[in-house]
Amino acid sequence: MGCNMCVAGATGNVGRTMIRILEERNFPVDRLRLLASSRSVGKKLAFRGAEIEVEELTPDSFEKGEIVLSSPGGAVSKWYAPSAARAGALVIDNTSAFRMEDTVPLVVPEVNPEEAHTHMGIIANPNCSTIQMVVVLKPLHDAARVKRVVVSTYQAVSGAGMAAIAELREQTRALLEGGSYERTVFPHQIAFNCIPQIPQKNAFGSNFYSDEEMKMVNETKKIMKDPTIRVTATAVRVPVFTGHSESVNVETGRKITRDEAIAILRKAPGVEVLDDPSNQVYPLAAIAEGKDATFVGRIREDPSHERALDMWIVSDNLRKGAALNAVQIAELFIK
Amino acid sequence: MGCNMCVAGATGNVGRTMIRILEERNFPVDRLRLLASSRSVGKKLAFRGAEIEVEELTPDSFEKGEIVLSSPGGAVSKWYAPSAARAGALVIDNTSAFRMEDTVPLVVPEVNPEEAHTHMGIIANPNCSTIQMVVVLKPLHDAARVKRVVVSTYQAVSGAGMAAIAELREQTRALLEGGSYERTVFPHQIAFNCIPQIPQKNAFGSNFYSDEEMKMVNETKKIMKDPTIRVTATAVRVPVFTGHSESVNVETGRKITRDEAIAILRKAPGVEVLDDPSNQVYPLAAIAEGKDATFVGRIREDPSHERALDMWIVSDNLRKGAALNAVQIAELFIK
Repeated sequence: MGCNMCVAGATGNVGRTMIRILEERNFPVDRLRLLASSRSVGKKLAFRGAEIEVEELTPDSFEKGEIVLSSPGGAVSKWYAPSAARAGALVIDNTSAFRMEDTVPLVVPEVNPEEAHTHMGIIANPNCSTIQMVVVLKPLHDAARVKRVVVSTYQAVSGAGMAAIAELREQTRALLEGGSYERTVFPHQIAFNCIPQIPQKNAFGSNFYSDEEMKMVNETKKIMKDPTIRVTATAVRVPVFTGHSESVNVETGRKITRDEAIAILRKAPGVEVLDDPSNQVYPLAAIAEGKDATFVGRIREDPSHERALDMWIVSDNLRKGAALNAVQIAELFIK
Repeated sequence: MGCNMCVAGATGNVGRTMIRILEERNFPVDRLRLLASSRSVGKKLAFRGAEIEVEELTPDSFEKGEIVLSSPGGAVSKWYAPSAARAGALVIDNTSAFRMEDTVPLVVPEVNPEEAHTHMGIIANPNCSTIQMVVVLKPLHDAARVKRVVVSTYQAVSGAGMAAIAELREQTRALLEGGSYERTVFPHQIAFNCIPQIPQKNAFGSNFYSDEEMKMVNETKKIMKDPTIRVTATAVRVPVFTGHSESVNVETGRKITRDEAIAILRKAPGVEVLDDPSNQVYPLAAIAEGKDATFVGRIREDPSHERALDMWIVSDNLRKGAALNAVQIAELFIK
């Protein structure tokens, strides 16, 4: 027997990827409803050969037993998800709206699947940059206790929505051809540039870290269930369409050699080790795009610390960083 | 009275920038000779309104008292510079050929100008990524002792030569238009991608760090004259034409607050603080291009360490990272 599924925010980058992943993974769907804002009502999107018409997303759109894959933006999730949960639906929400609430589990199925079953109608999908990092950190934590993480990100524009993809494309073309362009999504030129600000608006808190950076600091502790893990992050937007890369320095409680790290990560669920640098084999955004795995490579024993490793982690931010992780959470309820 | 100057490797990205900077800074030039490989002989480059014809670079090209701004590639420098020095010229070499030799000073004029005067005919210009980092680290080191640095770079393609610029441009165009492209410079697609390998060929040592990464580890200690400074680095090529960005985590011997760091860096020579993130003010490659300063911003008190700061450092890799630093070294001998 299958599930009644909804995709909320179905027309966005993540929503479309959710639909594709339900197809790819043969998720047992009895009925699929696609919900979005009133602007998108009437649009049709394909699912398993049929066209499904987009309906309006409202707090009253939901019924008991539905599983909602949700990525409509934080404010919209805050507005509709509590009443969807009260109606008896299970909302797996990809926005930051509920992630740090004590009563909302924050789940990466490879890391803390058991938490999913403590939900009260809402399960939060972590931030894209956090997900790919904790998938790699967890097996190292189990082996040798992660003490401190210093991470710098190289984040693709698709995480900022469809307009962001268009802005990178049009701006790049204009700069190459000497034409002019309009800038509406990013706070600065994104083509041929790196912007150390994520998100695009109201990014910075009183400690001068950006929201994206503090998500990595706080979500990591919650998902790994260890508030003693210390994290600092610098989140940077780069002119890449899809695939977040991360340079991660990990200090552990006991020394892990490169060989041991590779052995541990080869066995880790959801992780693929690409680490043969002399043959130019290491993770790349251009390789990760469209793939489900989180790729790790450039694993090195840090010369500046006796118990630290450097590594390079890449994953498709729309898949494992968002849509795939949400579908994997839903799968925990059909097994 | 002026100097007899040579630019060796005059037709490359850095050589051309050296000529431009000699003009901009009104360097007292009596005679300028432009040297390059036999392929470029006869080409003409402009200097102060005159056209200068490129001559062939050989070990016998030099005479006593000449100052040579040198950027012809490491193998060429190794071949010609010792005999140029024996002839009595002073070679300020931008390649990695001599940087770690005990008898060759490695100089950043804002950091260790006094070392320049210990030369035996060759002074080494540090690696681009190292220069912009030590210009910022030095005043912090003087104030509070730098203990450990974790740096991740976002490096522009112009550091890899003129062909690299063309490859990014042509590949970008081809990917946007769905056409095909040839890849000759970079080991992977560079357009819309991040490559954790610098340089392009034979990059990796036995510890799996790349040459570029180990330059930052080793050159930092030599320039700062403190072998106890521990550095680890991840060097990444990004699809940016000019301007290297760096995410730098700095652990110091005593805590420096954000305010103190800003006050220190505002007074530091060669450094410009751009740090008003809520107004979208921070260093950017697109802003640094063509400028002489090293820009620093996004200064934050690391939540993962009681005595560490995160910061974002950007500079024009062809200017302060190469040509400008070399000209500044030459200026130490005309004052």
